[in-house]
Amino acid sequence: MRQSELFSTTRKEAPKDEVSRNAQLLIRGGYVDKLMAGVYSFLPLGLRVMKKIETIIREEMTNIAGQEVLLPTLQPKSHWETTGRLDTYDSLFRFTSFFTKSEYILGPTHEEVIAPLMTKFNLSYKNLPIYIFQIQNKFRDEARAKSGLLRGREFFMKDLYSFHVREEKLEEYYEKVKDAYKTIFDRAGIGHVTYLTFASGGTFSKYSHEYQTLTMAGEDTIYLCKKCDVAVNDEIIEDQKHSCPECGEGNLVEEKAVEVGNIFKLKTKYSEPFGLTFRDEDGSEKPMLMGCYGIGLNRLMGTIVEVHHDDDGIVWPESVAPFRVHLMHIGKGDDVRTFADGVYGTLTEKGVEVLYDDRVDASAGEKFADADLLGFPWRVVVSEKTMAKDGIEIKRRSEKDAKVRTVSEFLGEL
Amino acid sequence: MRQSELFSTTRKEAPKDEVSRNAQLLIRGGYVDKLMAGVYSFLPLGLRVMKKIETIIREEMTNIAGQEVLLPTLQPKSHWETTGRLDTYDSLFRFTSFFTKSEYILGPTHEEVIAPLMTKFNLSYKNLPIYIFQIQNKFRDEARAKSGLLRGREFFMKDLYSFHVREEKLEEYYEKVKDAYKTIFDRAGIGHVTYLTFASGGTFSKYSHEYQTLTMAGEDTIYLCKKCDVAVNDEIIEDQKHSCPECGEGNLVEEKAVEVGNIFKLKTKYSEPFGLTFRDEDGSEKPMLMGCYGIGLNRLMGTIVEVHHDDDGIVWPESVAPFRVHLMHIGKGDDVRTFADGVYGTLTEKGVEVLYDDRVDASAGEKFADADLLGFPWRVVVSEKTMAKDGIEIKRRSEKDAKVRTVSEFLGEL
Repeated sequence: MRQSELFSTTRKEAPKDEVSRNAQLLIRGGYVDKLMAGVYSFLPLGLRVMKKIETIIREEMTNIAGQEVLLPTLQPKSHWETTGRLDTYDSLFRFTSFFTKSEYILGPTHEEVIAPLMTKFNLSYKNLPIYIFQIQNKFRDEARAKSGLLRGREFFMKDLYSFHVREEKLEEYYEKVKDAYKTIFDRAGIGHVTYLTFASGGTFSKYSHEYQTLTMAGEDTIYLCKKCDVAVNDEIIEDQKHSCPECGEGNLVEEKAVEVGNIFKLKTKYSEPFGLTFRDEDGSEKPMLMGCYGIGLNRLMGTIVEVHHDDDGIVWPESVAPFRVHLMHIGKGDDVRTFADGVYGTLTEKGVEVLYDDRVDASAGEKFADADLLGFPWRVVVSEKTMAKDGIEIKRRSEKDAKVRTVSEFLGEL
Repeated sequence: MRQSELFSTTRKEAPKDEVSRNAQLLIRGGYVDKLMAGVYSFLPLGLRVMKKIETIIREEMTNIAGQEVLLPTLQPKSHWETTGRLDTYDSLFRFTSFFTKSEYILGPTHEEVIAPLMTKFNLSYKNLPIYIFQIQNKFRDEARAKSGLLRGREFFMKDLYSFHVREEKLEEYYEKVKDAYKTIFDRAGIGHVTYLTFASGGTFSKYSHEYQTLTMAGEDTIYLCKKCDVAVNDEIIEDQKHSCPECGEGNLVEEKAVEVGNIFKLKTKYSEPFGLTFRDEDGSEKPMLMGCYGIGLNRLMGTIVEVHHDDDGIVWPESVAPFRVHLMHIGKGDDVRTFADGVYGTLTEKGVEVLYDDRVDASAGEKFADADLLGFPWRVVVSEKTMAKDGIEIKRRSEKDAKVRTVSEFLGEL
């Protein structure tokens, strides 16, 4: 894509009330726009990142047999009365239709939709297990939303629900989801600082598990066992007597972190109130066992930026970068532009995703600053100097040094 | 995909309160589930249809230089005060945050987000025109929602907004969008019964235009000029003196129809209140001219079903069918199953989208009934009879007669 055609432009300053680093950089880069606290618009570059994250998650969910659905945002109040969460869930947006006088909930999660939905299919032990996921927007009436994309009032989430006949089958799948989550966070470029973290299990289990990514921008405190590569959430560290649940040792390191995913064994917590049962081999009806598994996509995108940036801007991992290459021409003269046009043609023909800074009224300094702020993996410069060597100057965003190469040498490196 | 693994199953009956034909068939087929009036869950088959519709629309929007974004559902009340629509728009869902006491609107449309967003980029005449679209869920507090997917309280919509320096440029693009819409409705299989329809233009234009699809399920009345292949909406037929706006003749035919898309010249209606201006060649600031162009995706899906069904079920156009082929084995015996497994392997290897009814406990009658109800373009049956001829029985959903062919002959026909 040609940058001159992209409607979003970079900005020198983020809004003054935006204190989080992830949102400052994403807003300055024209990735997102802040409509109000905790609510962001995704502009073309930001949407490209979001879709890459979505694709990674969708592929890994499909790999563990997830079937994709799309559940509504509007949920009936009655379903939340059935589970008893109407008055205990502390961030529900609730409102009443002017016409029907029905009261609606804006879905912050979808157990109250998926469990009653599953009662409609007359399922027997032969049909189970079933794994259902969606990637869909969620709403939470957050008291405070100051962490940019890390804590939104509206945000995209992948939620997976599993349905089983026996507890050991739930356990088995729960372990599979752990593997899938590890793969997702690795692919998204934050695997090296993301830890399986023991958290409160609620009524039904000893523990639930979260995935916590180390960053000073995080609102959570975790205690890391470097021996086992797992962590303990602050909320259970006292119960846990400050020791690792795996090796039992007490040598834990306190860190700030952000929760990028969580997995729960719900067991019969939601199947019982909705009468979600299956016909077992002996003909009896038994409540299904459920698990639920979430990943917040906006938060994941914000976390990637918190982990991968420097003073000049974002440093996207290849897997989620909106474009792989930021091509530009610098210096005046038609020759430079023509040469750069040719490079753009060659790269896009080869299927490389290129944003081409073809602006004629921007200085070299402005173009370099934009490339650093936007943070694509490769910067490619065409100038008289590079043309003298019949080449292009290539530089990784994550490295300091640039080098001159021919276009075909560069294609080889890609 | 194997049908035995699909969690949704067909149902004999739709819910009693579901009076619309599109929702009855889509619910019975397991395409969608009704959560409450006007609010549907998309199950795997329904989501596949929705994604195909989405892809058609996205491709055609990209063809006319649309840049994709994703705007929030939550909108600040203040923006609706700015445009004066807070109290005049009759289907707004409004509510107040418990914590912040801010009042939010659930977006039924996005002029109140896109116009102020565009003020942030300091645009000059050189940057225009700009075309921005999104495919995103919308909310309307409908007084009545009895038409299934034709009128929802929550639904997906493609909304495109264009920004121009001069009225003639807006006019030119408006004509381009007309062509793109024609292509979209043709590709979605309803072009032959969809008419450009003159409707009220509001304050700024003589007319706006709608796309109306003929169906008895429609809630609108239009007057069709068969000579010009255009129609007039009931709302302006009196002003229009019952004559065609193109040829002037009065020989119009009254029809029931559903509005599947609309296009408006907004001109400066939303740019002025938000101060959305551009720097013109002479250095002066002028308000941008805007157009907006919508297509409801749920409604489009429901309309396709209203247009393409018979007594036995849906008859999907190839372009939006969730699978191209419904393969099944009938009769007992391992040989039949093994042969059908082989056909499934061959077809999927060739990239054909196949739902394979591999159920061993379903009768031939049940399988045929499911194939008719689900309505994929091709039904392929493997039985002892077809195996005797080393073949498969193929039948188009839209035709009565089946014929026996070899698998490679069938691949040729596809």
